[in-house]
Amino acid sequence: NWVVLLVQLLGVVSVVITAVWMGHFSQGGFAWTEDPAKEFSYHPLFMVIGLIFLYGDGILAYRVFRNDRKFYIKILHGGMHVAALIFASVGLKAVFDSHNLADPPLANLYSLHSWLGLLVVIGFGLQWVLGFACFLLPWLGMSIRTMYMPYHTFWGVTLLILATATALMGITEKAIFSMAKNGYTSHSREGTLINCLGLILVIFTGLVVYLVTK
Amino acid sequence: NWVVLLVQLLGVVSVVITAVWMGHFSQGGFAWTEDPAKEFSYHPLFMVIGLIFLYGDGILAYRVFRNDRKFYIKILHGGMHVAALIFASVGLKAVFDSHNLADPPLANLYSLHSWLGLLVVIGFGLQWVLGFACFLLPWLGMSIRTMYMPYHTFWGVTLLILATATALMGITEKAIFSMAKNGYTSHSREGTLINCLGLILVIFTGLVVYLVTK
Ligand code: HEM
Ligand code: HEM
Ligand code: HEM
Ligand code: HEM
Ligand SMILES: O=C1O[C@H]([C@@H](O)CO)C(O)=C1O
Repeated sequence: NWVVLLVQLLGVVSVVITAVWMGHFSQGGFAWTEDPAKEFSYHPLFMVIGLIFLYGDGILAYRVFRNDRKFYIKILHGGMHVAALIFASVGLKAVFDSHNLADPPLANLYSLHSWLGLLVVIGFGLQWVLGFACFLLPWLGMSIRTMYMPYHTFWGVTLLILATATALMGITEKAIFSMAKNGYTSHSREGTLINCLGLILVIFTGLVVYLVTK
Repeated sequence: NWVVLLVQLLGVVSVVITAVWMGHFSQGGFAWTEDPAKEFSYHPLFMVIGLIFLYGDGILAYRVFRNDRKFYIKILHGGMHVAALIFASVGLKAVFDSHNLADPPLANLYSLHSWLGLLVVIGFGLQWVLGFACFLLPWLGMSIRTMYMPYHTFWGVTLLILATATALMGITEKAIFSMAKNGYTSHSREGTLINCLGLILVIFTGLVVYLVTK
């Protein structure tokens, strides 16, 4: 299916643009706790890899490998969402470090972006635990699985959309902060790149949701 | 249905918070072209009234007045979306004026918010024309109506979600710009109000989408 291929392409391109933006523009580079300002760079990168790309692809697993054995797809689906959660956790550690280890330290959780973002990550964690408990462990009967299924799909799709909305706000914040001098508020190549990243994330998520709900 | 009532409540509260934010904080007031900085205040207010509240309620018309005559609901549904389009147009004029009439003028369409926002308004306009041409004018046969219907619903819901994502970015931008001195980047009552506005818009849209797709 060529739409699935297009989704892969958009996912890879969005990760590449984020890496280029964080590595080349902005604070210009990646570092760990020894340089908190550059440690921030891992936040956008790992959130896009985890909570957009792996998240979207994990959802598509059931649509792509329709004919393989159910158990293996389940492991793939659950496993990709574990990977997404790990990337998201490290991405969150990076941004909290960049606030707490700065001198003087910056406030945490003041923005709409951070509030919605934290809710999304918590929701994603709950979704994983519920999915694991209901669909993989043998203790629950078929009737509970059938009952939970529509909620699993609804929240899976809803949280992906909210993760993307969170990313759009994060992109907007970062663009304004890091271009304070050279000006996001006028036209520039960096600004155009940033805006294209946002549109690509929207199309990526739109296509995943379309594929899952059609 | 109490969910529909909750949606109304959230819609009214979001409009009130936006009006208070724009009237009380920020540039602190409303004006027309004689004061472009205060003319901006109409932008968030009219976009929230038009492209969130009236838009969402227009969609719900078919779910609320299930038992009335189809033709009257159609007029209500189409009419509310006309009203939404008018508010959106005046809201856009307000923000373009606030850029073009400023001294010196500010750039237009530099942000991800403005790009996605313009796409959403254009899409909304197209959706209205197509809806009007297919469902209200008598010239098209039933088979075309039936064919177009799922696309009408899909794009109606998709554009509402994108309008909300656009609003979240706009809120983030405005919070950073207008609190540059007193600091969105630390905790404050104004910041908390702004973040609550964003969460309310998310819940509003989430409930409308839930009601339409369930
Ligand atoms: C969808 C995934 C994302 C989630 C769940 C998320 C979550 C968060 C959270 C919880 C914080 C608060 C950290 C603190 O208070 O110390 C934060 C901060 C931040 N994030 Fe993200 N983020 C995401 C994506 C992005 C992206 C893609 C960017 C930029 C390109 C970004 C830019 C920022 C910035 C600039 C901050 C610091 C300012 C603030 O606290 O709002 N985020 N993020
Ligand atoms: C945060 C983690 C997770 C998210 C976001 C998520 C999301 C989703 C979504 C959106 C669907 C619908 C896919 C479709 O209809 O094609 C789905 C299906 C499913 N998921 Fe998950 N899921 C997660 C974790 C898990 C886990 C840990 C398991 C258990 C191993 C699991 C088991 C299933 C099963 C059995 C289906 C049904 C597939 C079918 O028969 O069509 N999920 N998931
Ligand atoms: C969902 C509805 C919305 C749409 C479609 C929309 C659309 C737009 C457009 C097209 C522009 C560009 C104007 C220009 O270039 O001169 C703009 C600018 C702006 N909007 Fe919105 N807007 C919406 C909601 C909001 C909200 C709710 C806020 C704030 C609370 C807001 C804040 C701003 C700000 C600060 C600007 C100027 C900076 C910029 O160009 O990005 N917008 N909006
Ligand atoms: C931008 C404007 C419009 C938007 C966003 C929009 C959106 C929607 C949505 C989301 C639905 C699905 C509602 C549901 O399933 O309960 C719907 C249904 C419908 N709309 Fe629109 N619409 C718009 C304009 C129009 C116009 C101008 C007409 C013609 C007068 C129209 C006629 C209809 C009809 C006949 C239905 C089918 C209702 C049913 O039988 O369930 N729409 N619209
Ligand atoms: O004109 C209409 O078209 C749709 C539907 O019949 C097409 O599937 C509908 O509900 C109308 O009122």
